[in-house]
Amino acid sequence: MKLLRYGAKGAEKPALIDEQGRVRDLSSVLPDITAQTLEPDALQRLRQLDASTLPMVPQPGRIAPPWTGMGKFVCIGLNYADHAAEANLPVPAEPVIFMKPTSCVVGCNDAVVLPQDSVKTDWEVELGVVIGTRARYVPEADALRHVAGYCVVNDVSEREYQIERGGTWDKGKGCDTFGPVGPWLVTADEVPDPQSLDLWLDVNGHRVQNGNTRTMVFGVAQLVSYVSRFMTLYPGDLISTGTPPGVGMGRKPAPVYLKPGDEMKLSVAGLGEQRQRVYAWDPELIDH
Amino acid sequence: MKLLRYGAKGAEKPALIDEQGRVRDLSSVLPDITAQTLEPDALQRLRQLDASTLPMVPQPGRIAPPWTGMGKFVCIGLNYADHAAEANLPVPAEPVIFMKPTSCVVGCNDAVVLPQDSVKTDWEVELGVVIGTRARYVPEADALRHVAGYCVVNDVSEREYQIERGGTWDKGKGCDTFGPVGPWLVTADEVPDPQSLDLWLDVNGHRVQNGNTRTMVFGVAQLVSYVSRFMTLYPGDLISTGTPPGVGMGRKPAPVYLKPGDEMKLSVAGLGEQRQRVYAWDPELIDH
Repeated sequence: MKLLRYGAKGAEKPALIDEQGRVRDLSSVLPDITAQTLEPDALQRLRQLDASTLPMVPQPGRIAPPWTGMGKFVCIGLNYADHAAEANLPVPAEPVIFMKPTSCVVGCNDAVVLPQDSVKTDWEVELGVVIGTRARYVPEADALRHVAGYCVVNDVSEREYQIERGGTWDKGKGCDTFGPVGPWLVTADEVPDPQSLDLWLDVNGHRVQNGNTRTMVFGVAQLVSYVSRFMTLYPGDLISTGTPPGVGMGRKPAPVYLKPGDEMKLSVAGLGEQRQRVYAWDPELIDH
Repeated sequence: MKLLRYGAKGAEKPALIDEQGRVRDLSSVLPDITAQTLEPDALQRLRQLDASTLPMVPQPGRIAPPWTGMGKFVCIGLNYADHAAEANLPVPAEPVIFMKPTSCVVGCNDAVVLPQDSVKTDWEVELGVVIGTRARYVPEADALRHVAGYCVVNDVSEREYQIERGGTWDKGKGCDTFGPVGPWLVTADEVPDPQSLDLWLDVNGHRVQNGNTRTMVFGVAQLVSYVSRFMTLYPGDLISTGTPPGVGMGRKPAPVYLKPGDEMKLSVAGLGEQRQRVYAWDPELIDH
């Protein structure tokens, strides 16, 4: 099942994608797609719907983040060996955890707005893992049972803020609009093997990232299990699992960063496509 | 005005402290103290109430976090020069930002539960700054206008997870129960100078931290202004402003960490007192 939300900020409606790839409105069934909607029983009830009875939405307009009520947005750093190499950092002995504030989350095609004075804003296509049932010290063998589904995440990152401004990475990871999520939350039953998914990102039509989740250092089950030892994961929490090589910071002969007018297009196989235009600082683009 | 919430988890009620220091229930006025309650107009409406008309609550029982709907919990590291020295780290040139997930927030007297295998859980009394109006690139001179009020925070920290397990500090900062907040949100009008507040923390009756917010490296106005350049702050967001010297990690001749049965007592002048007992891992204590 592919769940999504559409409509203007603050007026989003729930929907799903039917077998023909059409958007079907779920407003008659539930007021919104929330953390509670991602629990197994609630997902099962949605699965039993006859999608053909739901109103079609030929022009959904803006695609919003696929659920609301994300409690936390946990990120894993340096989780592809090749990416660690391009960042000149060793492959970690255990997962690197950092966090993005949920205030940075936007829809998959919303504007990415450069912070004032930003000179090193970069892209990172990632596989997002959405929690469906509470996970606390879960063994690796059980971890995938706690996953409601998967989504595409662009872990947009300001490298100067992240690396050169003191302290932890969080400073460069949580700027407004730095967390495009979606278009869909694809339920776990449609992703039989999260460790065999191609993922890629284009900037202005040029393929810059091209990887597969099979080269993750720590796989999804390991990550859910590991993170659950440091904080309880609740339905609606998101873990973004790290990025493959090809970020701007690692380009040769010199780093390349985003500038106003650039367009990012990115996808994880089966999870839909994101497309963001990059804008110079403009608060209007964040609020609307 | 001193706002608080009381009652069992999931059934909290809003209240305020009247001039005689008694708890007065606000349920007849508003369903809960939320992020919206912290906006200036909403606070003003509460200020105009005649507290003597509100029901007294002689036995409030559990004191809960003073508001619900915290969007993000931003922390500042090494913000007292003496504390940086005890941590063997240089005074930062600009504020160090890290984050705690909001899932670690508990009431001021709730149990602090050691994670499984934790051997280095530590205390940190801090002044918490609660946002009341949206702050985005706010100049320092205007920053305090965005503050709804202040509260006591214990930034409980697992030092092995924070420092020795790779990656950023977040791994040791966000464990369940590691964010006691309260007892009260004291509105900013009652804290004319946030840079002259004594703060202290006792472990088992021994004073271990003893400081004053005047020795902060970066003051509250600077911090609100600074953080607002990296992420928009919204009503209900919390900034915890760093801890003075005296944490367990810095004790001489050897570090001292929390063990089951220990009791922490802590306060910031005028903001009330917290008291937490430390327990070995027991998930029941987290959920109830």
